[in-house]
Amino acid sequence: MIKITLPDGSIKEFEKGTTPMEVAKSISEGLARNVISAKFNATTVETTTPLNTDGDLVLYTWKDNEGKKAFWHSTSHVMAQAIQDLYPGAKLTIGPAIERGFYYDIDFGDQKISESDFKKIEDRMLEIARGKHDFQMREVSKQEALDFYKKESNPFKVELIENLEDGDITFCDHDTFTDLCRGGHIPNTGIIKAVKLMNVAGAYWRGDENNPQLTRVYGISFPKQKELKEYLEFLEEAKKRDHRKLGKELELFTFSQKVGQGLPLWLPKGAALRERLENFLKKAQKRAGYEMVVSPHIGSKELYVTSGHYAKYGEDSFQPISTPNEGEEFMLKPMNCPHHCEMYNASSWSYRDLPKRFAEFGTVYRYEQSGELHGLTRVRGFTQDDAHIFCMPEQLDEEFKKVIDLTLYVFSSLGFEDFTAQVSLRDPENKEKYIGSDDVWEKAESAIINAANEKGLNYVVETGEAAFYGPKLDFMVKDALGRSWQLGTIQVDYNLPERFDLTYKGSDNESHRPVMIHRAPFGSMERFIAILLEHTGGNFPLWLMPEQAIILSLSEKYEKYSQKVLSLLENHEIRALVDNRNETIGKKIREAEMNKYPYMLIVGEQEANDGTISVRKHSEGDLGTMKIEDFANLINTEINSTLKPFKTEV
Amino acid sequence: MIKITLPDGSIKEFEKGTTPMEVAKSISEGLARNVISAKFNATTVETTTPLNTDGDLVLYTWKDNEGKKAFWHSTSHVMAQAIQDLYPGAKLTIGPAIERGFYYDIDFGDQKISESDFKKIEDRMLEIARGKHDFQMREVSKQEALDFYKKESNPFKVELIENLEDGDITFCDHDTFTDLCRGGHIPNTGIIKAVKLMNVAGAYWRGDENNPQLTRVYGISFPKQKELKEYLEFLEEAKKRDHRKLGKELELFTFSQKVGQGLPLWLPKGAALRERLENFLKKAQKRAGYEMVVSPHIGSKELYVTSGHYAKYGEDSFQPISTPNEGEEFMLKPMNCPHHCEMYNASSWSYRDLPKRFAEFGTVYRYEQSGELHGLTRVRGFTQDDAHIFCMPEQLDEEFKKVIDLTLYVFSSLGFEDFTAQVSLRDPENKEKYIGSDDVWEKAESAIINAANEKGLNYVVETGEAAFYGPKLDFMVKDALGRSWQLGTIQVDYNLPERFDLTYKGSDNESHRPVMIHRAPFGSMERFIAILLEHTGGNFPLWLMPEQAIILSLSEKYEKYSQKVLSLLENHEIRALVDNRNETIGKKIREAEMNKYPYMLIVGEQEANDGTISVRKHSEGDLGTMKIEDFANLINTEINSTLKPFKTEV
Repeated sequence: MIKITLPDGSIKEFEKGTTPMEVAKSISEGLARNVISAKFNATTVETTTPLNTDGDLVLYTWKDNEGKKAFWHSTSHVMAQAIQDLYPGAKLTIGPAIERGFYYDIDFGDQKISESDFKKIEDRMLEIARGKHDFQMREVSKQEALDFYKKESNPFKVELIENLEDGDITFCDHDTFTDLCRGGHIPNTGIIKAVKLMNVAGAYWRGDENNPQLTRVYGISFPKQKELKEYLEFLEEAKKRDHRKLGKELELFTFSQKVGQGLPLWLPKGAALRERLENFLKKAQKRAGYEMVVSPHIGSKELYVTSGHYAKYGEDSFQPISTPNEGEEFMLKPMNCPHHCEMYNASSWSYRDLPKRFAEFGTVYRYEQSGELHGLTRVRGFTQDDAHIFCMPEQLDEEFKKVIDLTLYVFSSLGFEDFTAQVSLRDPENKEKYIGSDDVWEKAESAIINAANEKGLNYVVETGEAAFYGPKLDFMVKDALGRSWQLGTIQVDYNLPERFDLTYKGSDNESHRPVMIHRAPFGSMERFIAILLEHTGGNFPLWLMPEQAIILSLSEKYEKYSQKVLSLLENHEIRALVDNRNETIGKKIREAEMNKYPYMLIVGEQEANDGTISVRKHSEGDLGTMKIEDFANLINTEINSTLKPFKTEV
Repeated sequence: MIKITLPDGSIKEFEKGTTPMEVAKSISEGLARNVISAKFNATTVETTTPLNTDGDLVLYTWKDNEGKKAFWHSTSHVMAQAIQDLYPGAKLTIGPAIERGFYYDIDFGDQKISESDFKKIEDRMLEIARGKHDFQMREVSKQEALDFYKKESNPFKVELIENLEDGDITFCDHDTFTDLCRGGHIPNTGIIKAVKLMNVAGAYWRGDENNPQLTRVYGISFPKQKELKEYLEFLEEAKKRDHRKLGKELELFTFSQKVGQGLPLWLPKGAALRERLENFLKKAQKRAGYEMVVSPHIGSKELYVTSGHYAKYGEDSFQPISTPNEGEEFMLKPMNCPHHCEMYNASSWSYRDLPKRFAEFGTVYRYEQSGELHGLTRVRGFTQDDAHIFCMPEQLDEEFKKVIDLTLYVFSSLGFEDFTAQVSLRDPENKEKYIGSDDVWEKAESAIINAANEKGLNYVVETGEAAFYGPKLDFMVKDALGRSWQLGTIQVDYNLPERFDLTYKGSDNESHRPVMIHRAPFGSMERFIAILLEHTGGNFPLWLMPEQAIILSLSEKYEKYSQKVLSLLENHEIRALVDNRNETIGKKIREAEMNKYPYMLIVGEQEANDGTISVRKHSEGDLGTMKIEDFANLINTEINSTLKPFKTEV
């Protein structure tokens, strides 16, 4: 008999050789119907793998990420079989599951494959799936494995096997198909009810451009047809909300090959949007006791040698900037903290002066390979809404709570209602990996957890995920399409205060070391605006909108009155523009709807005579005729309902 | 007989061999008494040089820069004589006049010289001066000259002479002293009535650090004792207003060796000051139809190859930034124009869209040798209040006037009342040096001159001073100590529109080339704030002041009321702070005066009971007791009197 421990902590006895599927059946038939994958003692196993020792067992269904991984990985076997059936001689290489779906890298030889071939491959895959073929793992000797693929003339699999140890090689069979595979499959092909090939791309064997180029075929699969349909609708919606597309349509930003990849150029409307976001945060930060500072975008190499960043990241970064005569070297700044440390060091501080909170919208530059760049979410230059709080260790608790308040204020003002947090602590088994004494770590970690509890955060604790210099709290928000994005971070730092020899004079008249907190509620302006675009589809909160209203004249006759309305609105600090083109009002309204103007203000004979406007709201319709004054109140009421002044409750 | 043309255009005949001094005497005895130097046919001559041909003669007095130059250069001979008398064996090298005074680089051998030696040198110099020794030039052969200095064992002068042509070598004698010299002296030493040695510094022979180090002795001299006294007072006042000193005292900015020389770090009060200046200009620019943009601080090398900057400045700049893998190279941006051109190119424009005015507070980086760096006026990184106007050639006239209006608005809002302008035109003799057709240059030059006339500017025209890419208008302001500073610039550019192939579609439906205007009313935030500090001595206009008022409590008892006053002032957007220390009110007032707080608000028993404050104004005194509301009105009235909203009169 063996003892199996389940995730709820319960321990059950089974006969040696019992499979995960049998364990599932012993719990309930319903569970057994849904189980598609398992982990035993933290190792992925098949649902059919006999368990021969005591251990921890986790059973996964489609709802779990591990379940999806097994599902998609198994589907990649089915796709490989279908492709080999349809393209004899196509040579398989590797075919893993990815975040959404799977791919297989294949050498098609002289054969070509394109989107127009997808239908026939999908059809063949579904035919195989309907056969309900079991996935079955078997061990093979290295020689057997090599013989198999040599016979198939597949140099890629041969190369993979040559790098494996004899005794550690497994094949997976289903139907007539066999693949070299480590395991992690669903019970049988019959569970796969819907498949969709997504696209093809080029990929080098083992990612090395000196190797032969392969064709990467991407696909996804689902246990229900309805889920595929929903997924495709989601993709359609995500495409509409792609921030790169919206950024262009709304004239927010652009890129130029001549300026350089990954270096956004903010056009007037985008720059104004950024500025509104920055002013919003500046105002809240002022109330929270932050002080703005300004530092240069370069620092001497020496600065980063002191901070330790040069040793850690120097080689993978933008390389040092040399000077014509004097042998000096500078680096583009990858973060603002070393500069802020030097500003702290420009004065001497007493315990009465702390905390000092230095904030800066600091533009930093980090090298990313061009292939990794993506719109505004992966760039080479970005502006952090950065701040560094220099405080006494005993102030950490309160400062942390204040920063959480500020972060939540930012999220709620921008319509992110659904977010989670992660508390990252050090690994207590490997204390030597971290800087700082046990005492300070324990205090800081409990300060973070207390703060998270007190502020009612929905958080998970990840032990061993802390940075070497201190524990941290990260926020993940869910956007309107249910996608998770990492946003703001709050990090404790014991390292830089040491390296920059930061001190303050305590009430005991002795010199002490302050603690630093790094924090950025937005994360970066670029990334945040990208997420906001994808979250709102460009329908920003009213206070952020580039134009809050468009004045549509019934005919060119009302140009003068339109301009008067515009200037009255400007007096109320409402951003508007006039559409005085010689077009029908119907066309003007349709275009204004398409361009997402929150309010359309229609002016004609009657409005001009009465000094009024006819108001339509975007995607809601007619709100009736009103005085400019009343419209201004309406807008301000709407803004004030989302944009309240920042208050901390500490 | 020879014909001498004087600066007023009059031509007089003299006998061949007449000296400038004799010409002066022929005009008036008064002039002759004051003439100390002369130029004949644009070449510096002695007042005693016989004139043997027809030519243009200019006579200089102490009031002219050329006169001062001769005066100070002559004094350097006197100092050299004094030093040789007092330090036998000291070897002379070169001793020119400089902007204020003169210096002489001397090899003192084993002898040391310090400020404590100045008195005896000055005394000896005045003794020589009182001898009224004539300065007399004489030609010497190369051999004679070499023999003279070899006898004196002076290798420096020998080296200088070796590089001269025989027949082109002159000595200047006065009293017992002889120096190798090209000329340009006052008539005799007797005119020198006041001398002052300023300081000593190290200097390498010929500026090369591989050469022997010399001692540079700086001095100045005047024709009247009173002028020396005034000059020393001016220096004293300038020292008090030195922006580096004030910047430290007012906690505006700092430098850090680790961050790098010439890279200012803006501390909270300085960053807030900058932001107020930026917001002030942003507001005016918004009214003037500018749109803010944001661009990165680097650009690919290709961008600067396109703009032509790389070919022109590449070698003397911060060197390119390489990347780890991809062979890409970036440069720190030395200006914003190439980025703005690429932003212009991101859309297509019609004549109806122009002018486009892209503005950015763009931080740029330019390499300067460390020896050239000076506080905020000569830095390696600075933020330009930059904008580029893309307009049709026919809009140049109006745009230029608008920019002048904006520039004058900036000066007057910041208390610079005394300024002049310079119009720089191309050299009509060397048209090939410039880009752009005759037609466009003529139009642009007349547009600038018309605009300058219409706006009533006090300007000079400098022919041949235009940039190769277009004519320009520069502004020079005089500060409170009478020093001139170059500030804003407005430049027309025909070059970048060509290089970046900028176009717009004209009303004729054809593609046309727009003209660019570069402009920066402040010039740079760093330089402007430095000048503002030196101009105001830190007593900024009220709207700019870091703190507009300080609340001084009569005792700690009134802390609560002080805080209430503070928060009421904050509601009125008045920046204030509380001094609630347990000190006498007399001491608090004295310190507040010293720290330049514009208003002191005294609160005690009576004020707390009545809800009032007792107001004192900096350097003016008591204004009586008033309600907070009334004080807020007082401040706002004062601000509105200097800070009016921008209006353009075009």
